[in-house]
Amino acid sequence: MEERYAFIISDRTGITAETMGHTLLSQFPMMKFKTVPLPFIDTEEKARQTVQQINDAAEKNGRLPLVFATLVDDNIRKMISSSNGVFFDLIDQFLGPLERELGVESAHTIGRSHGVVDPAKYTSRIAAVNFSVRTDDGVNTNKYDQAAVIIVGVSRTGKTPTCLYLALHFGTYAANYPLTPEDLIAGRLPARIAKFRDKLFALTIDPSRLAKIRQERFARGRYAGLKQCQQEVLQAEAIFRQENVPYINTTAISIEEIATTIIHKARLKRDLI
Amino acid sequence: MEERYAFIISDRTGITAETMGHTLLSQFPMMKFKTVPLPFIDTEEKARQTVQQINDAAEKNGRLPLVFATLVDDNIRKMISSSNGVFFDLIDQFLGPLERELGVESAHTIGRSHGVVDPAKYTSRIAAVNFSVRTDDGVNTNKYDQAAVIIVGVSRTGKTPTCLYLALHFGTYAANYPLTPEDLIAGRLPARIAKFRDKLFALTIDPSRLAKIRQERFARGRYAGLKQCQQEVLQAEAIFRQENVPYINTTAISIEEIATTIIHKARLKRDLI
Repeated sequence: MEERYAFIISDRTGITAETMGHTLLSQFPMMKFKTVPLPFIDTEEKARQTVQQINDAAEKNGRLPLVFATLVDDNIRKMISSSNGVFFDLIDQFLGPLERELGVESAHTIGRSHGVVDPAKYTSRIAAVNFSVRTDDGVNTNKYDQAAVIIVGVSRTGKTPTCLYLALHFGTYAANYPLTPEDLIAGRLPARIAKFRDKLFALTIDPSRLAKIRQERFARGRYAGLKQCQQEVLQAEAIFRQENVPYINTTAISIEEIATTIIHKARLKRDLI
Repeated sequence: MEERYAFIISDRTGITAETMGHTLLSQFPMMKFKTVPLPFIDTEEKARQTVQQINDAAEKNGRLPLVFATLVDDNIRKMISSSNGVFFDLIDQFLGPLERELGVESAHTIGRSHGVVDPAKYTSRIAAVNFSVRTDDGVNTNKYDQAAVIIVGVSRTGKTPTCLYLALHFGTYAANYPLTPEDLIAGRLPARIAKFRDKLFALTIDPSRLAKIRQERFARGRYAGLKQCQQEVLQAEAIFRQENVPYINTTAISIEEIATTIIHKARLKRDLI
């Protein structure tokens, strides 16, 4: 199947445009898209080059490229919308109705969304990231009294990226503790985390997927064998059930999804939005 | 000034709805908003409760709440849109035109955007996160040959969160190296990073902001004094200019913005979109 061009155009980082464009395109799983992110299109000269690039793609591909744009400057937006693409204006379509409802004019200012920083929030976010890095992989358990959540699970279930996502996006103090084979054989939570039971949230995963992940990074020792993975997952889930630790299966979901689910289920405070 | 309610409603994580809602609201800096994120609204029962919550807010606040929604299920969307809020349909407004342009029906499937995982991308993302954690704060410089970018700067300029954001969102192998007072006095790049000059990207910051950040975390020693910060920043920027290391000032911009700017300016490969 031929790919369809999808340009993601923004006057700043393009984070909003990418998120929206990705969400919309994901509703067409039967189609293939060639995504071209073009951030920082903030001058008429860059806009002219972008129009040329869209028109070239249209001619080469034989079909009109899709163009998803978050552009605040009226001039630049008009230039891009005049290209030979199908223009989806992700901002302006909503700003008019919002202005009417709120009874004020919008700022029409580039880069307000991800650009402007609240120093207090910035600092608490950095502090959360530092906390998560310092308490990664079961170290510094003496800091667990400061944690908002402690993620537990066997090795390679996604604990580290989940904690860092929580810290970066929600300002959550998230520690993580890997259950070792010794912990699993003991059949209950190790003492140093048992006393923080109310803060625990567990990750589990399908054993066959776990084995694949482990095999990708390590030689094929016992650690990465399917049998070992099956046994570890079985033992870990038994502990979570017995000790009433909430857990989710991360096999088929993304880090964003794991993190947001934990925020939601553990009713954690969200600092950043 | 009275706050206006802004409900962010999604049938899944709400990441897209939050990003879009935040971008739109940030164009009205003169207004105050009370943002209420309601993710995982995926049943009619939850939709009914949500409608009630919106109507209660409308009555209590005296003004219609804004409602930003990414809802794929037609039934749930209709229910929410019938509430006493001003409904901004972030998905459906674009899906119809997209379906017509592409000549196919959309999947109308909940949670496709952040939920479905490509195992290969997942693994490379995790590997990038692990790399960034292992090479944080100047450790394991022997792994720098694997890095796509090495972030340098004096202490507390935002290197760690920037690296982790790059790893999580773009799958970038990002290491970071703090310039010590000894490095600064020497007046040139330390040997162990000088040989990776093409991979270096530097962060700098206004000295007064740097002093504030340092004072928030440490007692008021010399390290956090304005004079020390001024000197370090001056010395560091002199090195960056002299050794042709590109750098950006992080004083007033967010981690997202820093990371996306580095991806763009250093022309790094983006693995994830």
